[in-house]
Amino acid sequence: MITHINPVGSMNLLSQMEVDRLKQSASGSLYHLFRNCALAVLNSGSKTDSSKEILERYKDFDINVIRRERGIKLELFNPPEHAFVDGEIIRSIQDHLFSVLRDIIYVNSHLQASSLFNLTASTHITDLVFSILRHAKAINPGADPNLVVCWGGHSISPVEYQYTREVGNELGLRELNICTGCGPGAMEGPMKGAAVGHAKQRVTGSRYIGLTEPSIIAAEPPNPIVNELVILPDIEKRLEAFVRLGHGIIIFPGGVGTAEEILYILGIMMHPENRNQPLPIILTGPKESADYFRSIDEFIGSTLGPDAQSLYEIIIDDPAEVARRIKTTMPMVRDYRKSVGDAYSFNWSLKVEPEFQLPFNPDHESMANLNLHWDQAPQQLAANLRRAFSGIVAGNVKESGLHAIEKKGPFLINGDPRLMKMMDKLLRQFVEQQRMKLPGSAYVPCYRISR
Amino acid sequence: MITHINPVGSMNLLSQMEVDRLKQSASGSLYHLFRNCALAVLNSGSKTDSSKEILERYKDFDINVIRRERGIKLELFNPPEHAFVDGEIIRSIQDHLFSVLRDIIYVNSHLQASSLFNLTASTHITDLVFSILRHAKAINPGADPNLVVCWGGHSISPVEYQYTREVGNELGLRELNICTGCGPGAMEGPMKGAAVGHAKQRVTGSRYIGLTEPSIIAAEPPNPIVNELVILPDIEKRLEAFVRLGHGIIIFPGGVGTAEEILYILGIMMHPENRNQPLPIILTGPKESADYFRSIDEFIGSTLGPDAQSLYEIIIDDPAEVARRIKTTMPMVRDYRKSVGDAYSFNWSLKVEPEFQLPFNPDHESMANLNLHWDQAPQQLAANLRRAFSGIVAGNVKESGLHAIEKKGPFLINGDPRLMKMMDKLLRQFVEQQRMKLPGSAYVPCYRISR
Amino acid sequence: MITHINPVGSMNLLSQMEVDRLKQSASGSLYHLFRNCALAVLNSGSKTDSSKEILERYKDFDINVIRRERGIKLELFNPPEHAFVDGEIIRSIQDHLFSVLRDIIYVNSHLQASSLFNLTASTHITDLVFSILRHAKAINPGADPNLVVCWGGHSISPVEYQYTREVGNELGLRELNICTGCGPGAMEGPMKGAAVGHAKQRVTGSRYIGLTEPSIIAAEPPNPIVNELVILPDIEKRLEAFVRLGHGIIIFPGGVGTAEEILYILGIMMHPENRNQPLPIILTGPKESADYFRSIDEFIGSTLGPDAQSLYEIIIDDPAEVARRIKTTMPMVRDYRKSVGDAYSFNWSLKVEPEFQLPFNPDHESMANLNLHWDQAPQQLAANLRRAFSGIVAGNVKESGLHAIEKKGPFLINGDPRLMKMMDKLLRQFVEQQRMKLPGSAYVPCYRISR
Amino acid sequence: MITHINPVGSMNLLSQMEVDRLKQSASGSLYHLFRNCALAVLNSGSKTDSSKEILERYKDFDINVIRRERGIKLELFNPPEHAFVDGEIIRSIQDHLFSVLRDIIYVNSHLQASSLFNLTASTHITDLVFSILRHAKAINPGADPNLVVCWGGHSISPVEYQYTREVGNELGLRELNICTGCGPGAMEGPMKGAAVGHAKQRVTGSRYIGLTEPSIIAAEPPNPIVNELVILPDIEKRLEAFVRLGHGIIIFPGGVGTAEEILYILGIMMHPENRNQPLPIILTGPKESADYFRSIDEFIGSTLGPDAQSLYEIIIDDPAEVARRIKTTMPMVRDYRKSVGDAYSFNWSLKVEPEFQLPFNPDHESMANLNLHWDQAPQQLAANLRRAFSGIVAGNVKESGLHAIEKKGPFLINGDPRLMKMMDKLLRQFVEQQRMKLPGSAYVPCYRISR
Repeated sequence: MITHINPVGSMNLLSQMEVDRLKQSASGSLYHLFRNCALAVLNSGSKTDSSKEILERYKDFDINVIRRERGIKLELFNPPEHAFVDGEIIRSIQDHLFSVLRDIIYVNSHLQASSLFNLTASTHITDLVFSILRHAKAINPGADPNLVVCWGGHSISPVEYQYTREVGNELGLRELNICTGCGPGAMEGPMKGAAVGHAKQRVTGSRYIGLTEPSIIAAEPPNPIVNELVILPDIEKRLEAFVRLGHGIIIFPGGVGTAEEILYILGIMMHPENRNQPLPIILTGPKESADYFRSIDEFIGSTLGPDAQSLYEIIIDDPAEVARRIKTTMPMVRDYRKSVGDAYSFNWSLKVEPEFQLPFNPDHESMANLNLHWDQAPQQLAANLRRAFSGIVAGNVKESGLHAIEKKGPFLINGDPRLMKMMDKLLRQFVEQQRMKLPGSAYVPCYRISR
Repeated sequence: MITHINPVGSMNLLSQMEVDRLKQSASGSLYHLFRNCALAVLNSGSKTDSSKEILERYKDFDINVIRRERGIKLELFNPPEHAFVDGEIIRSIQDHLFSVLRDIIYVNSHLQASSLFNLTASTHITDLVFSILRHAKAINPGADPNLVVCWGGHSISPVEYQYTREVGNELGLRELNICTGCGPGAMEGPMKGAAVGHAKQRVTGSRYIGLTEPSIIAAEPPNPIVNELVILPDIEKRLEAFVRLGHGIIIFPGGVGTAEEILYILGIMMHPENRNQPLPIILTGPKESADYFRSIDEFIGSTLGPDAQSLYEIIIDDPAEVARRIKTTMPMVRDYRKSVGDAYSFNWSLKVEPEFQLPFNPDHESMANLNLHWDQAPQQLAANLRRAFSGIVAGNVKESGLHAIEKKGPFLINGDPRLMKMMDKLLRQFVEQQRMKLPGSAYVPCYRISR
Repeated sequence: MITHINPVGSMNLLSQMEVDRLKQSASGSLYHLFRNCALAVLNSGSKTDSSKEILERYKDFDINVIRRERGIKLELFNPPEHAFVDGEIIRSIQDHLFSVLRDIIYVNSHLQASSLFNLTASTHITDLVFSILRHAKAINPGADPNLVVCWGGHSISPVEYQYTREVGNELGLRELNICTGCGPGAMEGPMKGAAVGHAKQRVTGSRYIGLTEPSIIAAEPPNPIVNELVILPDIEKRLEAFVRLGHGIIIFPGGVGTAEEILYILGIMMHPENRNQPLPIILTGPKESADYFRSIDEFIGSTLGPDAQSLYEIIIDDPAEVARRIKTTMPMVRDYRKSVGDAYSFNWSLKVEPEFQLPFNPDHESMANLNLHWDQAPQQLAANLRRAFSGIVAGNVKESGLHAIEKKGPFLINGDPRLMKMMDKLLRQFVEQQRMKLPGSAYVPCYRISR
Repeated sequence: MITHINPVGSMNLLSQMEVDRLKQSASGSLYHLFRNCALAVLNSGSKTDSSKEILERYKDFDINVIRRERGIKLELFNPPEHAFVDGEIIRSIQDHLFSVLRDIIYVNSHLQASSLFNLTASTHITDLVFSILRHAKAINPGADPNLVVCWGGHSISPVEYQYTREVGNELGLRELNICTGCGPGAMEGPMKGAAVGHAKQRVTGSRYIGLTEPSIIAAEPPNPIVNELVILPDIEKRLEAFVRLGHGIIIFPGGVGTAEEILYILGIMMHPENRNQPLPIILTGPKESADYFRSIDEFIGSTLGPDAQSLYEIIIDDPAEVARRIKTTMPMVRDYRKSVGDAYSFNWSLKVEPEFQLPFNPDHESMANLNLHWDQAPQQLAANLRRAFSGIVAGNVKESGLHAIEKKGPFLINGDPRLMKMMDKLLRQFVEQQRMKLPGSAYVPCYRISR
């Protein structure tokens, strides 16, 4: 089966040189990445977290960029049937497909052509993140602060999932918008809940932003509520996009990915220059998840200290209170941005150090070399712990990671014995609570902690 | 607790004489009706089908219309708390509240002042239905036919409920709008499903119309998805509103109310003048409900004959096919309306005989006097059977009916023995399948069929 | 030539009973009025102020309301060609045509059917004015005060006309909307100027409201800028509509009609209950018109006294200052309305006495009987002077007036000799300055002042 | 006087690196150009065509780009007062100011940073024109062909000006949009007329596009109707923008600039590959201008031949017919674009040879070296004649040209004697008809034709 899909959004208005470059890139070195991300998007709503599974089921899927006088078309071979209704592609999937083209092919070919960006310089990285978001029209200069970033696991219990929906509903009732990492679980629940809350308040122009990156999109394809999809080049730029776009952060129960996110934001907020940034961070879950947060809190207390603990608040089993807390902080965010002359829609003044920006490429060597000792500043330790957890996420669900583990066995992680013990304990809890993988599949650890 | 609520919609633009009349009506003979309907609306989303329960729980609730120089305000005493977020009324509930004021108080006071309407004349009744819908801005002259009426029980099984959502999703994916009778079950499922379908297709301006009437609204308050609420004066005008607004009808499993609706539409469509009306009628449910439709079909075959059966189609367990069937008929509806010069938004040319328009007031006498014999045209028999079922709905959930039964015991229904046997069989099935009341409460029949 | 025109606006959504009544009215007693007003609208933009001329040029013009299943159509026979472009009616003329149908036929047939209105009661008259404006969607509850009523002659010099445009431009630059009496001259200039001002400020949703009445519309058809046309039943209701809708009043040079308007607004504003109403009234013109305003001011000083004079301000040759003066008063208007709980969009709290509301039907008898002596309160004298000028307008340009004068000679006006002298002087000045009729036609007075 | 102006449009959403580059460019080599164009825009609506005059009157005007955390502001010193209303800048002037910043500074700094463009390659030039227009949001992929390019003189007689307004009105009545070169005369009249026509047809979203270039903007600042202003880098790219954006071309009387435009479009349309392009070209004016078009037509006939003459149509004194002609061609334009797969909003398939794209820099040498002989293909001759006229425009009104002439005396033009005679005759007629400069100033020729 062959289908042609018309472009939407900015991909509808390309120059002929852009079309040529696009066509070339899409069939060249980026083809593989582009094809797999497109396939992920066409699988929106399916219930697996295994990129491998998807890739294998649709082996004969293929995608081409076709040149027309006036622009481009996408040509799909054997796409998943459930992306279509009576032969027509579902509009949100069409949107997402061209978001993939825009962010993967277009951004890449632009980067190559530009002499502007030096991607080892901190300000250049931030500029690139901004440029990608602006090009995706995700930056809305007119609006007051109202965007809540929700983090949490893609594999959570039904009770936890229901709780994320309730929090979403309460956020929606207060006319707040949602930004998550795409995918199921805690990335979907708050959006679904907020959609109902927005409907009750007759809100129009609601935003359900999904920020993802090429290596995770296949495992966590955008849920059907996402109405703005942006694919950042790597995990670090995605994390930076979250914290510069969002005006408040809610962290639901999750696994190593969530731990990575917590360490990232704490590491940044501990920077002395960010002391006055009013960014509410709330860890929340149903009463069944109280233990989970206790162990996270304990781990942070022991590793980063009480300063780090003072940056967040834990609220158990009270969705309305969570939403109220966020809502009441929004005017402070606005006032602060105003006072320092910063934009409401992109937090330029937040200081992010290079160790949180430069890509960490997890493999056996880099994982083994991580400095996990006490001989560093807490925010540096946070940065290294973040990298360790990031590596485990890769080993769990990302194509490259899975491949490396298959070939060479689990990653070895080593460091200060006391620190290693704490880490081991936390990870064991994640395994026990089935937070590593979607339930049903038995978890085989992709790491070994040496003491 | 006292709260003042600002008017919205057409209630925001009243003349001072209108305000005076409104104030007078709202505190006069209509006060009781107005208060109870307002209370029902403030209870949107609650999980009971007993008006009695609601009325008793909020005994100290009160409502006033307050006059201001520029218009009115509503003053609420002790309203249900869940209608508010951080002290502000939820916008959809505010909308519904003023729909109640508009349709109950305003329509009544306008009717009194007007010498135009003779409510025993068929054309006048139709005109009134149109006027109420137009005043509620439910008639949209610009749009192509796309409104699907969904009927079915408020008390259905989880499997059936899930099925109504899936049908709604498929309708929404095909950009069709939904009109139901308000309330939970089959009135809510299609709307929720369609909302997701519309989101997937990025449809804006979706319509989720709830048509209700004063005696049923307390038992079936509008669900949160309803974004247009119209309260017709009685069940007959509500049914006429359904069939003149809708461009297709889907009937899900339900109880006596659903049976009433089926008999109503079949009685009308059997009229020779309606032969050419292209109105798709589809009876559908999951495979678990196949038996249900078999008994309905059998009952119709035996009472109204194969002509009546030819007017509908039964589709089991195929949501996409149901939606496709409706979608493909829409161009025929448009062409037919065009060919006879009729409006797309209100089916003026549908012939509705007075026996389907004049209010039937079910009490022990009128129920006992119904002609339920074979000595009449099939559409007449349909009209009388419709009345019988309507009476049972009243006895089950309406305030007046519950009261009458409490005082004088069950309604007696009599007629031709063979017919009575069929009816008895059908009703017993409804009881067995728990379609008479929300599960949990044991059903005590409000009727007795004498043979 | 026969053309069929589709309905727009509220005339696009009629019930069948309404269509029947409309059809009947339009071909019955109201036919004559309806036809002539429709013809006036079809002549928009033509350059004559003689209804007679228009009526004679298009003697074979005819108009019918045609019934369709879904509503109505208008059938035009031999309409003026310049109302069409390539066979299609110009959209603004189509709009105006259905405004005529709406306000003349529909309002009348509704009034007859309603037992609500007693048109000798002050509050009922106000209510009717409100109802007509609301039905025409001319009342916009959301907006802040920004509507400037511009009065002045339809026959003014090119220098004066240019000045009205400049004032309009300055009003438009300050995002104020315009309401005038339709027609050429000072009714057109401010609208044209404001349209340019609005374009410069990128204002969308600009309002150019024309308020007219059946006996004047033929002489002063709506100019092409008017985008909301409302036809009030008579001159008194039209004047009331002006003062309840407007938030400020600008008076340009004009003739007797303008004098009528000045006396009307001064008579009302002199009422003790209106003392606190913040309504800016500005008399303005180019330096060439300074004499004109001096004589008006003198006349008012001598007849109504300094209290009346204190109600307005005269600004000569300073368009920007005029607009600034209006603009800076708008917040006061808003605050006052807020403080008394009145609407921004309709000034309910302005006290208008019946002598300014009840229709004055000028004929030889009523004109002769006017009390034009000093033995009355100043606002009463203002009311009677207003009537005298109103009669002269009728004698100058209205069909009925022209007819009466033709038959019986000029109206006789008598009263206190000193008062008569002042009046005579003012009227002579109007004649000398060619303010009675469009230039080119010699003016034959329609009145005689007896001393 | 110092004023700070907030950014609008795309200049409201800059990254910090972009801000830095902008600030640098605006105060560096581009400062002079930027300042003068900004000054021109602030003088919108003034009545001179002398850039010198403006530049001298506002010698102490200055402009800075100021950096803020969130973006930029413009700081103006001693700007012309008439750009402000009560201390606030007029919105359209604010828009134009940021169009200047966008097109002059931003485009330049982007070009420098990009390795993409080779500005001697034909496809790259076209790509750049497209990129600039797209960045200015002047390309609207959704709309049907409806954009009419109007060319003609900035210095035309009142009768001709009135005629351009009437043509504009007829275009507006047919819902066509207008694109001109900015400035007064034939660039303003069609826009003003169309604005009235659009108002009559209640058209929203009307487009009044002004395309200009840095060296001409001071002499022809945007009139107040222009709602999209784009400044192309040079005259050749501006001409290419006209012909790729427009769907039809109307040429009013004008001087050498207009002759340049005619030769440009004829030279292009004579290319064999453009044979099938349906592009209506209409030369039109009032009957008083009949002679003018006769001499133009004669000149074209003698120089380029009857093939060139067959590409346009001359319509004298019939505005409605002009508009009808354009209107009826629009479906053909659409069908042609569809058939070749081209965009409706940008004519990619129009072949433009490099001789029409590469900048011609008129100075004494290049003017003297122009090949104005018969020994070339007609489209080549058209290209060279175009350059000759372009040089005269520069000598008449552009800063660089005026300067060169002042220093070295008139340009010398030489070529085939017969050709030179024709050219001389045409130019003399322009002088006689006062088409070289705004009336009032005596014209001193900036050229000498040697035979």
